[in-house]
Amino acid sequence: MIMIMVINGPNLNLTGERETHLYGNATLNEIKEMLEERAEKLGAKVDFRQSNHEGVLIDWVQESREGFQGVIINPGALTHYSYALRDALVAASTPVIEVHLSNIHAREEWRSRSVISPVCLGVICGLGPQGYLLALEALVKMSVVEGGA
Amino acid sequence: MIMIMVINGPNLNLTGERETHLYGNATLNEIKEMLEERAEKLGAKVDFRQSNHEGVLIDWVQESREGFQGVIINPGALTHYSYALRDALVAASTPVIEVHLSNIHAREEWRSRSVISPVCLGVICGLGPQGYLLALEALVKMSVVEGGA
Amino acid sequence: MIMIMVINGPNLNLTGERETHLYGNATLNEIKEMLEERAEKLGAKVDFRQSNHEGVLIDWVQESREGFQGVIINPGALTHYSYALRDALVAASTPVIEVHLSNIHAREEWRSRSVISPVCLGVICGLGPQGYLLALEALVKMSVVEGGA
Amino acid sequence: MIMIMVINGPNLNLTGERETHLYGNATLNEIKEMLEERAEKLGAKVDFRQSNHEGVLIDWVQESREGFQGVIINPGALTHYSYALRDALVAASTPVIEVHLSNIHAREEWRSRSVISPVCLGVICGLGPQGYLLALEALVKMSVVEGGA
Amino acid sequence: MIMIMVINGPNLNLTGERETHLYGNATLNEIKEMLEERAEKLGAKVDFRQSNHEGVLIDWVQESREGFQGVIINPGALTHYSYALRDALVAASTPVIEVHLSNIHAREEWRSRSVISPVCLGVICGLGPQGYLLALEALVKMSVVEGGA
Amino acid sequence: MIMIMVINGPNLNLTGERETHLYGNATLNEIKEMLEERAEKLGAKVDFRQSNHEGVLIDWVQESREGFQGVIINPGALTHYSYALRDALVAASTPVIEVHLSNIHAREEWRSRSVISPVCLGVICGLGPQGYLLALEALVKMSVVEGGA
Amino acid sequence: MIMIMVINGPNLNLTGERETHLYGNATLNEIKEMLEERAEKLGAKVDFRQSNHEGVLIDWVQESREGFQGVIINPGALTHYSYALRDALVAASTPVIEVHLSNIHAREEWRSRSVISPVCLGVICGLGPQGYLLALEALVKMSVVEGGA
Amino acid sequence: MIMIMVINGPNLNLTGERETHLYGNATLNEIKEMLEERAEKLGAKVDFRQSNHEGVLIDWVQESREGFQGVIINPGALTHYSYALRDALVAASTPVIEVHLSNIHAREEWRSRSVISPVCLGVICGLGPQGYLLALEALVKMSVVEGGA
Amino acid sequence: MIMIMVINGPNLNLTGERETHLYGNATLNEIKEMLEERAEKLGAKVDFRQSNHEGVLIDWVQESREGFQGVIINPGALTHYSYALRDALVAASTPVIEVHLSNIHAREEWRSRSVISPVCLGVICGLGPQGYLLALEALVKMSVVEGGA
Amino acid sequence: MIMIMVINGPNLNLTGERETHLYGNATLNEIKEMLEERAEKLGAKVDFRQSNHEGVLIDWVQESREGFQGVIINPGALTHYSYALRDALVAASTPVIEVHLSNIHAREEWRSRSVISPVCLGVICGLGPQGYLLALEALVKMSVVEGGA
Amino acid sequence: MIMIMVINGPNLNLTGERETHLYGNATLNEIKEMLEERAEKLGAKVDFRQSNHEGVLIDWVQESREGFQGVIINPGALTHYSYALRDALVAASTPVIEVHLSNIHAREEWRSRSVISPVCLGVICGLGPQGYLLALEALVKMSVVEGGA
Amino acid sequence: MIMIMVINGPNLNLTGERETHLYGNATLNEIKEMLEERAEKLGAKVDFRQSNHEGVLIDWVQESREGFQGVIINPGALTHYSYALRDALVAASTPVIEVHLSNIHAREEWRSRSVISPVCLGVICGLGPQGYLLALEALVKMSVVEGGA
Repeated sequence: MIMIMVINGPNLNLTGERETHLYGNATLNEIKEMLEERAEKLGAKVDFRQSNHEGVLIDWVQESREGFQGVIINPGALTHYSYALRDALVAASTPVIEVHLSNIHAREEWRSRSVISPVCLGVICGLGPQGYLLALEALVKMSVVEGGA
Repeated sequence: MIMIMVINGPNLNLTGERETHLYGNATLNEIKEMLEERAEKLGAKVDFRQSNHEGVLIDWVQESREGFQGVIINPGALTHYSYALRDALVAASTPVIEVHLSNIHAREEWRSRSVISPVCLGVICGLGPQGYLLALEALVKMSVVEGGA
Repeated sequence: MIMIMVINGPNLNLTGERETHLYGNATLNEIKEMLEERAEKLGAKVDFRQSNHEGVLIDWVQESREGFQGVIINPGALTHYSYALRDALVAASTPVIEVHLSNIHAREEWRSRSVISPVCLGVICGLGPQGYLLALEALVKMSVVEGGA
Repeated sequence: MIMIMVINGPNLNLTGERETHLYGNATLNEIKEMLEERAEKLGAKVDFRQSNHEGVLIDWVQESREGFQGVIINPGALTHYSYALRDALVAASTPVIEVHLSNIHAREEWRSRSVISPVCLGVICGLGPQGYLLALEALVKMSVVEGGA
Repeated sequence: MIMIMVINGPNLNLTGERETHLYGNATLNEIKEMLEERAEKLGAKVDFRQSNHEGVLIDWVQESREGFQGVIINPGALTHYSYALRDALVAASTPVIEVHLSNIHAREEWRSRSVISPVCLGVICGLGPQGYLLALEALVKMSVVEGGA
Repeated sequence: MIMIMVINGPNLNLTGERETHLYGNATLNEIKEMLEERAEKLGAKVDFRQSNHEGVLIDWVQESREGFQGVIINPGALTHYSYALRDALVAASTPVIEVHLSNIHAREEWRSRSVISPVCLGVICGLGPQGYLLALEALVKMSVVEGGA
Repeated sequence: MIMIMVINGPNLNLTGERETHLYGNATLNEIKEMLEERAEKLGAKVDFRQSNHEGVLIDWVQESREGFQGVIINPGALTHYSYALRDALVAASTPVIEVHLSNIHAREEWRSRSVISPVCLGVICGLGPQGYLLALEALVKMSVVEGGA
Repeated sequence: MIMIMVINGPNLNLTGERETHLYGNATLNEIKEMLEERAEKLGAKVDFRQSNHEGVLIDWVQESREGFQGVIINPGALTHYSYALRDALVAASTPVIEVHLSNIHAREEWRSRSVISPVCLGVICGLGPQGYLLALEALVKMSVVEGGA
Repeated sequence: MIMIMVINGPNLNLTGERETHLYGNATLNEIKEMLEERAEKLGAKVDFRQSNHEGVLIDWVQESREGFQGVIINPGALTHYSYALRDALVAASTPVIEVHLSNIHAREEWRSRSVISPVCLGVICGLGPQGYLLALEALVKMSVVEGGA
Repeated sequence: MIMIMVINGPNLNLTGERETHLYGNATLNEIKEMLEERAEKLGAKVDFRQSNHEGVLIDWVQESREGFQGVIINPGALTHYSYALRDALVAASTPVIEVHLSNIHAREEWRSRSVISPVCLGVICGLGPQGYLLALEALVKMSVVEGGA
Repeated sequence: MIMIMVINGPNLNLTGERETHLYGNATLNEIKEMLEERAEKLGAKVDFRQSNHEGVLIDWVQESREGFQGVIINPGALTHYSYALRDALVAASTPVIEVHLSNIHAREEWRSRSVISPVCLGVICGLGPQGYLLALEALVKMSVVEGGA
Repeated sequence: MIMIMVINGPNLNLTGERETHLYGNATLNEIKEMLEERAEKLGAKVDFRQSNHEGVLIDWVQESREGFQGVIINPGALTHYSYALRDALVAASTPVIEVHLSNIHAREEWRSRSVISPVCLGVICGLGPQGYLLALEALVKMSVVEGGA
């Protein structure tokens, strides 16, 4: 069974409530359910988590080193400065796809720079909850074709 | 019928031949066929093009304003300086997804800056030919749910 | 009853002990008491908190979304890089005033740049514990004049 | 009697008329009256002035060296480049609080940098006319507690 | 007979259709007609052209070296990076006026920098189609007063 | 009757005497006369002024808010740093055209950056005294077509 | 008895497992044991800790203010942005030596800048686990010679 | 037979006519003839081309991948921004020498930065038409000593 | 008779009173007297002035164009941003020496950059009131040897 | 016998005399003796040198390529710009440790950047003469464990 | 007889030994012999020198002012900072060609900037020892055609 | 007897021969004689030296620590990068005046930045050989008034 850890960073628990013109109306729970449903169809399973604490996110990334074939991460605003999260992703050998609900390149200048992207397999942004589903699809496909990238 | 224009910029005609450790082994023609096949399944049609000429790409983007529900664009190295291509995308009202075969954030510094991304709906990079398929899926889904964005 | 949450970031628990030439001799507890006393006079109530953990501060800001008419925040050194805290403040609809005991513009170069200020109602710095009292006064006044900002 | 000089820089004479979404509806005269009233209550007196001329402002700051216990200054756009005004403030030994009606950190990039702040006791911005009142309160309090800072 | 070449760069063929709040409602054809009419009154003739291809624009600038007394150029987004177009203008000895429909200094940061301006006689921007007419007037006047500049 | 205020900044009183290879031989008085003559033909009137004092220029811009349909401003070297003059122009609701005798983009690096341009309707530079006439023409035309921009 | 607190930041718990070409093969536990053994020889005692949480590290630094004669800190990637950790170190009066297993100056550009170093007694990097031992030696020596620095 | 493609970019067709104090009096045709003559002596053949179109230059570089042992390129002003041309050179496996007639380091600041140089074998500049001849000599010598670099 | 105008900018009227560790104990009047005395010995005469108004300084520089053989200027903090003063100095043909009492290169970063120096004959700083005397000597010497520079 | 060359750059001959609050009271000769004594205990030998001449230091580094197992270098102020010294260290295959008496990160901005560090095994700074001893220890240990790094 | 001085800077004496993947296998002596041989054929003579001392190189450049028709200089790492060497080259009236064995634009960022190039006739890099021969050829040719440049 | 050491850096031995439009016609020897003559009048003695070697200059500065009351230094192009020379000047307790023949602020951008100035008593530039004489006068005066600064 392909296991994918889905990690959400600070403030993503408010998705669907805050700034819906940017992040859409789907709540994080609805995104979780969409992913679980799609995962089932693809013969995979997702472990969906959220925390506002950088340290917790790092613990989870380290945990993903065993028993997971891939990680989908939406680091929230940590995207732009958490070199510690980046180092955790480097240390873990699992393939990672970075996802953002909004197009981070079409907003404030500082949002267009990610310290996370350089250590990921790939990045998907601006496609809303769909971005998670596409990332899942890509990771599962790679796992089937023996671990990808 | 949903029509999607797929525009490929400079040097992408060499995909599958040049720097395969970065861009993979699939040729541009194989990517075209994958897209056509997937499009058919999704009830859509793709019009797949490539040119090394910035001016031609701008002409095509302008052309997409009529009869197309979306554009997938891989601008090649024009990504990093062609404000003229960007202006063409702004002028066209069609939703656009920018795609890159490789993770442009994990390469030379100058590749991590796109002048195109701020005017796109979203960006997918680092997932190889899959990136095109995922972009297609996202655009078709949006077109069905009445024009997306 | 007007409720104001007062949030203090990393190392502010040492106020009154460390670098007193910069931060003064009043301890954080004394500042809390001054605020509670003044709040009572103004017909308001303050909920005064401190943590060294960015994640905890974000949790609190999110909590302030219900039952609070305003937030006073002294983010300590997180002022200068915590985009995650900033995003939490944006997500919360409560009016916020940023306070610093010392004049951050008269110290090291990097202290003069706040990533928090652009999303606050206003900023008070350099006036010591008084800064908290003035912020309280301003927030209460705004709440009375129907929600301010 | 505690004397406070209140100095307003270029274009502040238009307050209440221009860009009221930024600066509010109170005119400079109304702010003057609020300050005089509050000063009276605090046992102080304000000398309220405005000029569009950098040289005049410098003359006034120099004048404040005798007979004044504090200065409140809103330097208008001179905030961002008048090193001459800054030098005048340094030369004067009177404690100074810099005030801005709007939150200068939430506007154009260049407004977030003040060449004046590093030589002031403190800064208050974004709180409208209230900012002047709070500054007055703080200066008077300091004068009572023997000259502050 | 005074001959003036009027060169329009990428996306200007869409003028009047795209972003009319920025570029106005007049189409490029209407601007052409206004210019022809005004030229006739001034005893001059305009040769009005547009292309999305940088190379074609360079060919035209080179062509202007013979039989033309002046060039009016609106380089579109090439304004901001086409050093090749700039070199062509330097190589041609014809006097050149750069024109922009919108005020390029009141838009995105990158639009305020022109690599073309330093090699032109002068620049007119922000005055809509009028800008072309004023440029024509200025060039004709200079040609009459024996070649200007 | 259309009234246009023409404001000239520091050192422009020396036009025609200093650096004539840059600014031409026409004196400021001759420019004034050309403008008055042209204004008469256009059914307008110009109020032509010059000062070396930033504060005086700001006073004049404020004065232009009543009884004037437009402002032509050549801010001299204040162009490059006077945010106070810029704020005055923003506060005034009159349409403004910025004029420079020389091509400021073809001289020292620092001259190519104007803090004034972003708040003007348009900019004309490099066309000598003609620039003033063209600006006048454009402003009058706009006033006729009911207030322009 | 000389007490030295040894603080390890994010991802250092993976030392010996991740990127061994950079960090060597010794595990963090082995480094702990080496230090304890060496401490004993020097008549000192080390309290060895690791956490992925910035807030926990700050708590520990504050704790070190009592009962410890020195701190050895390897802040991991927090080195490069945690001004909050830096402020904690400033607030603590204990002498601190910053240690890095790898030579941070011979890796990515951003690793060569430490916001921590300016507030430390000294820095040792690139010498692997030896770095910790040398830091211990230096701190003990200083404590003996009455508190160093 | 050793085949060398010689590619000339925008505006080089004007060599010998424009700015002869910078580029010398030899026309591009004369340079072509010098090269053909020298090539013959060296037992090689040159295919000499010029275009103002970036796209055409990219097509040619791609074409050079078959049947050519080396490329000499003078990219004109594209030198300073055409990452697309650079990518084409990377994709082609042929050894490339970049040539400039003038010393690009002794002119405008922006001319001293080449985006092309990092992907070439070597660079020759400032030696006029001789530069082409020396590049030819070097490439032929390398081809003889089995492919060089 | 050699006439030298000595121009002092903002805050120099406070010399001898403010920050005497930087500017020394001599008052501006004492400096004036030293200069007059020395001038007399050298067969020259000084016209010594001070103003806090940029506009007044510009007027004076323009005035110096007639009847003066040289200018000594200490522009105070205008040194660092007054391009208008610089332009006045350029327009005046009189030789100018810039003088600063303190060593502006040994203080705040922004003080080490003068926009005035590039248009002066020379600069003397850090030598206190002596700097004025040395400048006078140099100017007189040059006037004698027929106008210097 | 393990041979270690210890190289000291410009002005280090004054150690113990100049700025003792920064560099301590030990003279360079005393440091030499400490090192010789410690080396003897470790079964090694140090060759201790100092020069104010960059060229001499480069000669010595080249000389270290034969007969030395390691180099300790304190390049003095050459640390911050001598790329020639850096290249010499790269060319030499001997392991190198860079040492500074003071904490270069806690002084002027420019001192925090070393062009030497990226090519060293490691760096020790801020620990006074101890830094040399610790470097010696580390190098000897590595030599014993067969050449280190 | 045409005399050419060939000057080699720091570390070039190690050519052929150090980093041969970058600099090739030819020793400096072999390059000297190639040059002497080629010079003889061209009717010229080379005076070949190397030093690690910036001062010595400057002395030699000054010496070249008499009796030499040209200088070939490979300044080694001094290329990137020795303004003193640059000034020496400016002072000498001899034509100079700068040579580098490797392509300095394809290595570390700082190597791509030469402070020497702007004052040379031309630059050749990346062509190994050939670069010296081509430079010699170019200089001799120029000397014959009466002094070149 | 007051002893002043006068130190001249690289290429100053060519003064009077090279670029006389910048440096004047006086040779270094003539400047030496002027200084000796003036010194005699002032009851002082100068020790005048020149070297192209940074190391030698540093040796001399160190030597000046004994038996000299002041140093006049013209560091030539070392002005712009020799932090080692700067450190030597800091280490020496002798008062230093930096002199430049030309106005370094009116030439290339990089010449306007001196790493030496911040550690000197004062700076004189642009006044030709006079600059040396004025520096001498100032130093002697200070020595008389007991050591100056």
